[in-house]
Amino acid sequence: MSSSVLYMSMSLDGYIAGPNDNPNNPGGDGGAVERLHRWGFTETGDVLRSGPAGELADAMEATGAVVAGRRTVEQVDHWKGSHHGMPVFVPSHRPPGPSVANYPLVTYVSDGIASAMAQAKAAAGDRDVMVHGAYTAQRAFEAGVLDEIQIHQIPVLLGAGRRLFDGSPTRIELEVVRVIDTPEATHIRYRVLR
Amino acid sequence: MSSSVLYMSMSLDGYIAGPNDNPNNPGGDGGAVERLHRWGFTETGDVLRSGPAGELADAMEATGAVVAGRRTVEQVDHWKGSHHGMPVFVPSHRPPGPSVANYPLVTYVSDGIASAMAQAKAAAGDRDVMVHGAYTAQRAFEAGVLDEIQIHQIPVLLGAGRRLFDGSPTRIELEVVRVIDTPEATHIRYRVLR
Repeated sequence: MSSSVLYMSMSLDGYIAGPNDNPNNPGGDGGAVERLHRWGFTETGDVLRSGPAGELADAMEATGAVVAGRRTVEQVDHWKGSHHGMPVFVPSHRPPGPSVANYPLVTYVSDGIASAMAQAKAAAGDRDVMVHGAYTAQRAFEAGVLDEIQIHQIPVLLGAGRRLFDGSPTRIELEVVRVIDTPEATHIRYRVLR
Repeated sequence: MSSSVLYMSMSLDGYIAGPNDNPNNPGGDGGAVERLHRWGFTETGDVLRSGPAGELADAMEATGAVVAGRRTVEQVDHWKGSHHGMPVFVPSHRPPGPSVANYPLVTYVSDGIASAMAQAKAAAGDRDVMVHGAYTAQRAFEAGVLDEIQIHQIPVLLGAGRRLFDGSPTRIELEVVRVIDTPEATHIRYRVLR
């Protein structure tokens, strides 16, 4: 059965972006996002296709649909219309911005995270659904529709920025599925226990 | 040469204790500390002496001195006077509470974290210094006197409590020294790069 998987690069102190991230300042101040994603790219900026990083990139691109938060998609202009050809579902109560009219594979879902996830799972078929964004992850946890977490934990303390996990009303137990140990990142995959 | 090593069990969302931790409520609300340290104990509450957990306990107990924050030591009443026979140094601007008069191996240091660390290193000789506590870790980072971090990352999202890393003015690069992968915890040891 297909799973919904949160994919995020995170510093040891829990940050996924710098301070003040918004569409006019993608990734926030101070190059935090570049630092957090360095493990997945060559020095010239291409996606790494070899070793553990290459396998993780292949797995991400083999997912069948994306559920991503509005803050995320607006900072990357909806990946110009799809994520490696995959449809993108954005839970949001507000209508989308004008660029979305040009993106037939981008769907704004106004009736909540569970609906967005159901639509994404239907689109993904037997492939996994990639989940992205801190706020969206939190809502997916609360609604019980997040199956796994793939954290790329980066050996850096950023000290400030946007946190992936910023408080939650419930305790959630996880199960370690797999750890990939490289100098650039500790890649830990968890299953969410419910 | 001996190193100063921060040893902490931390949830994936960055917590090391529950909300409202204080001497009258050790570890805070909700049993967070018990959950975070379960990896190191048997079901009857003894320290685990076998496997990776046993090796980590041995390494911790083989350190030669402890630098621990006042919040931590007051919640465990200074481990009744020593930490497995090791002297304990507590950086604090306020005079110690009355129980400390009975603890010859506990020293309150009023002139800052660097001084506390220097005294602990002198006491430890060629053994490592164990560092404990969130506030103390932060001060040790800022003063440049923390050499390594041993994080026991626990597969749980606690949602609330006291964070190990709660904002810092500087970015700090780390180097992954060693990862020990068990179902109960992902034990990651980092060197602090300066």
